[in-house]
Amino acid sequence: MTDALGALATPAGPATDRAATAGTAGEALAAHLAAHAASFLRGLPSIEPRTLRRVAGALHTFDALLDLAWARELRDELLRLDTLVGQEQAYTRRLARLTTALDSLACVDSDAAPGAPKARALLERQLTLARSRAHSLALQELGSARFHAVADRMTLLASDLPLRLPAGSAPARALLTHAAAARRRLAEAVAVLPLARSARPYNGDGLHLPDEDLPWREVRLLALRARYAMEVCAPLLGPEAAGPLAGLTELGRLLLRHEEATDAAEAAALAGATARITPATAYVLGVVHADQRLEVEAARHAFGLAWPELHHPDWLSDSWFTR
Amino acid sequence: MTDALGALATPAGPATDRAATAGTAGEALAAHLAAHAASFLRGLPSIEPRTLRRVAGALHTFDALLDLAWARELRDELLRLDTLVGQEQAYTRRLARLTTALDSLACVDSDAAPGAPKARALLERQLTLARSRAHSLALQELGSARFHAVADRMTLLASDLPLRLPAGSAPARALLTHAAAARRRLAEAVAVLPLARSARPYNGDGLHLPDEDLPWREVRLLALRARYAMEVCAPLLGPEAAGPLAGLTELGRLLLRHEEATDAAEAAALAGATARITPATAYVLGVVHADQRLEVEAARHAFGLAWPELHHPDWLSDSWFTR
Repeated sequence: MTDALGALATPAGPATDRAATAGTAGEALAAHLAAHAASFLRGLPSIEPRTLRRVAGALHTFDALLDLAWARELRDELLRLDTLVGQEQAYTRRLARLTTALDSLACVDSDAAPGAPKARALLERQLTLARSRAHSLALQELGSARFHAVADRMTLLASDLPLRLPAGSAPARALLTHAAAARRRLAEAVAVLPLARSARPYNGDGLHLPDEDLPWREVRLLALRARYAMEVCAPLLGPEAAGPLAGLTELGRLLLRHEEATDAAEAAALAGATARITPATAYVLGVVHADQRLEVEAARHAFGLAWPELHHPDWLSDSWFTR
Repeated sequence: MTDALGALATPAGPATDRAATAGTAGEALAAHLAAHAASFLRGLPSIEPRTLRRVAGALHTFDALLDLAWARELRDELLRLDTLVGQEQAYTRRLARLTTALDSLACVDSDAAPGAPKARALLERQLTLARSRAHSLALQELGSARFHAVADRMTLLASDLPLRLPAGSAPARALLTHAAAARRRLAEAVAVLPLARSARPYNGDGLHLPDEDLPWREVRLLALRARYAMEVCAPLLGPEAAGPLAGLTELGRLLLRHEEATDAAEAAALAGATARITPATAYVLGVVHADQRLEVEAARHAFGLAWPELHHPDWLSDSWFTR
């Protein structure tokens, strides 16, 4: 296994797979983390947020195998960085979502809504400004000592993963137990969602139910974490990993749609509260806000329909992970 | 049958049923029209719009049995009167629908939407004013020579229905053919609706598809007419009429919901275009408008699901009517 560990600093590939399918849980985890750390380092100075989330997710799910304080600290740093560099892209997507929706609103299509062009210009101005600020903050971060410390840790992560014993020296399949726990935490969080109501279309939740977005955001975090945990286990599972990964990816897609719609609705509301805009502009922003809240409701509905199907297959049962 | 015809000026009841289940199509139609004309006259000076629509609907569906010019003229007068006296009630329902929706909007529940109380007050002011105007117009109409002419015709209708021969002297079951034709016209109009799209929830039609309300209004008219035609045939059918009547009543309910939501959305848009309102008020009215358009979409969805079920039963097939 020494050879395999030596190969960890190289990109993910056959060497990594070899490391993961044999040896200890610690070695398999190290192989996975090293591959993504290498990908992170190769990509600099640009940063792919998903790489950060993948490493952070693995540090979270498999922290029983790691020095806990070290894992938590690096995880928190990576998530902070993810937020910083993810914002710019999020604002770009938010603006695209809002202007696309605005342009296709039937009620603002004609002279009936003279506020539409101004509403569009206002959203563009506010979100472009927010994006520029996010860009500056990200640039500033990339030049900071704090970022260099993270990069250093990512370099070390490949060769010096601080494993905890004896958990780290358990057989590689022990990783499946932790992935199963991540799946269970997801299922527990979903159990709290009002899925029966969401599965009924046009239930009015999007606009008429307050303070219901946070549990859905939490579920998205847990779905991502479950997916990244499954990715760590993928080399152990071979082709069998494809089903679970596709299912968790689909859940993540639905929950991202939910989150982006809630954020876009809030952006429309904020724009609507801008001082000294015309009533016509505010009216259109109210329509846009409601339209995005409808998207929120639609995403919950889609999730409510998809979850039982994606949740019940064998691969999400505890026995699948531990057979 | 002379006895039965003599009973026509009295309220609907056993005598009417007797008249309808025997004799000619003309006698059965006369019995039905006379019962509703009597109900109209008894109710004066207050007017039940549904009675007007029932008589007008029967005059339309069964006009092959009647003097055509006479039937069309009275029908148009009754529908004009229906519009006049129905407006007041429509404004009352529209205001209730809008304020109920507004009060339950999560986004205007707090300090976040300072425009909510003003939006509510504006809707109340505008719709109460419209209702008062409708009330005055209706009162004015009730004192007009034109209305007295209609009332006179309704009195004569009971005793002097101008039947056309030989259609009027066909057996009573001939009425079923005309009811079947009314049902067919409904099915033809529904065939033009984008039902496959409507049956998909959250299709965005409510807010993102322009100029789609009119075909739905037309379908509502035809569904009402099909139901009133079935009511004329009910004495011929006995308990068998219950299924068709319930089905058509349900369709009418869904289509009324659609129509009231489109009207409410328009009222919110009109309020939003009021001069010199605050942006905060306009914003809330934009949300209310979009919420009502969502109701439009939900009503279409419900109709899209209900129609195949209500349309396919035996009782809506041509053979059911003509067996």
